[in-house]
Amino acid sequence: MGKNNAGEEVQNKQVILRDYVRSYPKESDLYISTSTIKLQVPQGSNGVLVKNLYLSCDPVMQFQMRKADYHMSGYYYYVPGAPINGFGVAKVLDSGHPDFSAGDLVWGTTGWEEYSLIQNPGKLFKIHHTDVPLSYYTGILGMPGITAYAGIFEIGALKKGECVFISAASGAVGQLAGQFAKLLGCYVVGSAGSQEKVDLLKNKLGFDDAFNYKEEPDLDATLKRYFPEGIDFYLEHVGGKMLDAVLLNMKVYGRIAVCGMISQYNLDQPEALKNLLHIAFKRLSIKGFTHRDYHHIYPKILETVVPYIRENKVVYVEDIVEGLENGPAALVGLFRGRNFGKQVVTVAHE
Amino acid sequence: MGKNNAGEEVQNKQVILRDYVRSYPKESDLYISTSTIKLQVPQGSNGVLVKNLYLSCDPVMQFQMRKADYHMSGYYYYVPGAPINGFGVAKVLDSGHPDFSAGDLVWGTTGWEEYSLIQNPGKLFKIHHTDVPLSYYTGILGMPGITAYAGIFEIGALKKGECVFISAASGAVGQLAGQFAKLLGCYVVGSAGSQEKVDLLKNKLGFDDAFNYKEEPDLDATLKRYFPEGIDFYLEHVGGKMLDAVLLNMKVYGRIAVCGMISQYNLDQPEALKNLLHIAFKRLSIKGFTHRDYHHIYPKILETVVPYIRENKVVYVEDIVEGLENGPAALVGLFRGRNFGKQVVTVAHE
Repeated sequence: MGKNNAGEEVQNKQVILRDYVRSYPKESDLYISTSTIKLQVPQGSNGVLVKNLYLSCDPVMQFQMRKADYHMSGYYYYVPGAPINGFGVAKVLDSGHPDFSAGDLVWGTTGWEEYSLIQNPGKLFKIHHTDVPLSYYTGILGMPGITAYAGIFEIGALKKGECVFISAASGAVGQLAGQFAKLLGCYVVGSAGSQEKVDLLKNKLGFDDAFNYKEEPDLDATLKRYFPEGIDFYLEHVGGKMLDAVLLNMKVYGRIAVCGMISQYNLDQPEALKNLLHIAFKRLSIKGFTHRDYHHIYPKILETVVPYIRENKVVYVEDIVEGLENGPAALVGLFRGRNFGKQVVTVAHE
Repeated sequence: MGKNNAGEEVQNKQVILRDYVRSYPKESDLYISTSTIKLQVPQGSNGVLVKNLYLSCDPVMQFQMRKADYHMSGYYYYVPGAPINGFGVAKVLDSGHPDFSAGDLVWGTTGWEEYSLIQNPGKLFKIHHTDVPLSYYTGILGMPGITAYAGIFEIGALKKGECVFISAASGAVGQLAGQFAKLLGCYVVGSAGSQEKVDLLKNKLGFDDAFNYKEEPDLDATLKRYFPEGIDFYLEHVGGKMLDAVLLNMKVYGRIAVCGMISQYNLDQPEALKNLLHIAFKRLSIKGFTHRDYHHIYPKILETVVPYIRENKVVYVEDIVEGLENGPAALVGLFRGRNFGKQVVTVAHE
């Protein structure tokens, strides 16, 4: 890919939503199209024109592919015929905004396309530490990192020796959350959807133990095996049957931080939970949260996590596919759990 | 009923569990039997021998009629062939415990019988304020009072102008919780299961509004009608469909305090909740609790609530049946929502 000059008009490959999705998204719900874009911010705009480098595949994008649901206000829904968007890392080529200049590296919401005009760059984060892989700003130093940090350090406020369970543990958030909990001296068990992921958790990510939920016919019994005394803290990603089994196995006064329920996102009929009664019986505290509530502590997160990366105290596993044209398969694969670690799409190297 | 003398052996009418209950309890799951009891604490025991005055009908007793479930540790299960027990108000006839003397009035766990030997009286509360109806110590000044106080003042920490929804609002806890929230300057709406109960909430208990959930085909639409801006705080008693609709109508950062889910207690197949995802999307905080966590603030609760009663700032509606032999019907009626206010059984007047 050649060097682009500001003002030049270039071809712009894009990932377009074909039509609203109703159930599990399929690769054919998206298609690649090419338009043209002028590499210049329009006169009078305070936007920025960026070249996209890495795009993040995130579970919530399943919702954004659906027709807007009035209950889900706060989310941007994709528009059929237009490119989808999500978190990404990009390089500023031209700026109409006083905080950004050509050459800046940023992360935040951008389009699934080679170049994007970001009309409202106020929410972009400028990237200062570039001695770590730039793709990390879609993961450990991006939204999943904020989520894991908030879940473990802020909401969980974990104490040494506490028993912690993490579902979707090899995913973008789970792998970090587990490592953070280990750094705090907790006993940490993770669940994942393949033997390969289980091995990763135990052998590379330092979890005390891990299991493949697909091979466990009785999740209640499974959790009793790993947590004979019960669970102090559960980082909830998956919902459904797993949450139901967890409710049975929480300690009295146990805490659950909920950042997602990926198993339920595409079901027409969600799974019936039998054990919600235990919220009262066990006096559980359950707190839903999203990364958006913790953007104000991002500087503190960087101060903590960047040294962890440099000192190899945490590792971060990414599943990177090369090329925007391979984005739709990667994204749909995430919804099926086919990714191995954080799913990233490389659009261009810097 | 004549005056009893300590040491006398008397007949003791009891309510006995016939066999473990599997689904909705029926009146025939209980029967009345008469044994004898010596009105004296056995030599060397530090128990108390009490004459029972008022017995409390509480939702949790449905569980206690079942075969012990290892998940529900912390609850006492009834034994077939033996009298059931629950909260009640009683008078001490004889005491082997240094904290209690003959003539003391107490409330706490006692048997469903005329006289009980309470082996471990350490958990009984002594009654000091007797210018209020003694039956109130099964309700507003007993377990439901502690629950309502904790839910509204401690967990809810409600602020003036907040929008509060209370289900099972005419029940033992709900009617109080609603009045407490009104005293704090909140907008309070309650749901109940009959027009008569709705009228009670609006006309006598000072709720801003109320509805009969049995006549609302679309609870989501109902809640939107009463809470166009959403709900700040929900005191959860009922679970199931109501909770599912509430999740859709909570404000972002809304709080839910869960003291029970009575609609789900007797279902073989609990209702599927579709909207648990909103815990994350709306960043809800959900906290389960029971009165047992708040016994240490009971003196503070009395200091607040006794003056409220004396000054008519709160009223308390009781549904009192006379006679232990009418206890089984009253108890089973509670599980069906047949009670109008706090369900109490009078065993004897002091």
